[in-house]
Amino acid sequence: MNAVSLKVPKLRLYHYWRSSSSWRVRWAFAYKEIACDFVAVDLLPGASESAEHRKRNPLGYVPVLEFQGQPHLPYLGESIAIIEWAEEVFPEPSLLPGNPLERARARQLAEIINSGTQPLQNLNAQDEHTKDPVERKRWTQHWIRNGLQAYETLVAETAGPFSMGDQLTLADLFLVPQCYNAARNEVGLDAYPNIARIQKNALATPSCMASHPDRFQPK
Amino acid sequence: MNAVSLKVPKLRLYHYWRSSSSWRVRWAFAYKEIACDFVAVDLLPGASESAEHRKRNPLGYVPVLEFQGQPHLPYLGESIAIIEWAEEVFPEPSLLPGNPLERARARQLAEIINSGTQPLQNLNAQDEHTKDPVERKRWTQHWIRNGLQAYETLVAETAGPFSMGDQLTLADLFLVPQCYNAARNEVGLDAYPNIARIQKNALATPSCMASHPDRFQPK
Repeated sequence: MNAVSLKVPKLRLYHYWRSSSSWRVRWAFAYKEIACDFVAVDLLPGASESAEHRKRNPLGYVPVLEFQGQPHLPYLGESIAIIEWAEEVFPEPSLLPGNPLERARARQLAEIINSGTQPLQNLNAQDEHTKDPVERKRWTQHWIRNGLQAYETLVAETAGPFSMGDQLTLADLFLVPQCYNAARNEVGLDAYPNIARIQKNALATPSCMASHPDRFQPK
Repeated sequence: MNAVSLKVPKLRLYHYWRSSSSWRVRWAFAYKEIACDFVAVDLLPGASESAEHRKRNPLGYVPVLEFQGQPHLPYLGESIAIIEWAEEVFPEPSLLPGNPLERARARQLAEIINSGTQPLQNLNAQDEHTKDPVERKRWTQHWIRNGLQAYETLVAETAGPFSMGDQLTLADLFLVPQCYNAARNEVGLDAYPNIARIQKNALATPSCMASHPDRFQPK
């Protein structure tokens, strides 16, 4: 942890163990060794925490970062906003390449997941689309495949062990949790050899292992 | 325009006049006075440019920025990636507040539109949901209202003339084009007084006027 010269209040992350957006942030914090308390929030249907959680994030989603004891703007939602904040305040080790063009490409890859895939396959989009379980599965798989295919095509231009060559970047932090969602929805990675290789390499990194959903599953 | 000391190739923006994501980027470039050629791409059903455009962006969307004559990574998609690139390479005038916490909040607001609203109300999501025009409208209005309500609640903590007080930021560049989509889908702003005020102020800025869809509508 190598914070810039700013007073950062004690941090608390509201998350859910198998929310892919939560995993992105847990992973960024693990990579940068940012100290943080974790508070589990269950937003599944039937859970009672949704109304309480909307005071922290009006869209009702996790993750939300709390700056404890801070009177102005104590809550910060949206994984990309949290990770860009972490990158600015704890710049080393960086989750972005060094030059602007490659930084932009890493952000483009992250966006293929962040805005192009995850919101469309999320539970609330499924709920709004249909109650029919067969059609829900078709819908969910459609959006996951659409996103992973685009990622696979694009990442071929930059991939090494990770999405942007040798360096772990925020692109990987968005990709691998989406692959976890893909597996839960029975979408295999055989059609996406670059993604499959990147996932294997990323899963073996200490920060990925430290932030993996399995480690946060309620007993 | 106040570029950092980098050689930036000649820029070309592939866009569509009333795509809200295209407007975000046109607006950022107008605000920063970044010189750019514009190339219209019609991605509506029946248009013939989709296959050609997928070579520039595998998700098939606009906007896409081209770095003309650059052999490595000549194309950059995703509005947020393009705008963050512009912010890094042409830092003045800035589209982000000065301190990290407020920068993060501006990004959170932009994300409410970028990942929380626009992808769900987009034409391709409508197409996948249903062909029934009444249900398409209900679906579209649902996601627009869901996003604008969250934005309204959150922006109350920071709003002045614009979303982040006195300064035009990327939050406004995402909000106002979404309001344009709202109007096209007969969602009024009466329930969102902060948003309505911000929209009015932002529409009167020279960079917004210079980038407005009306100015790019084909004759």
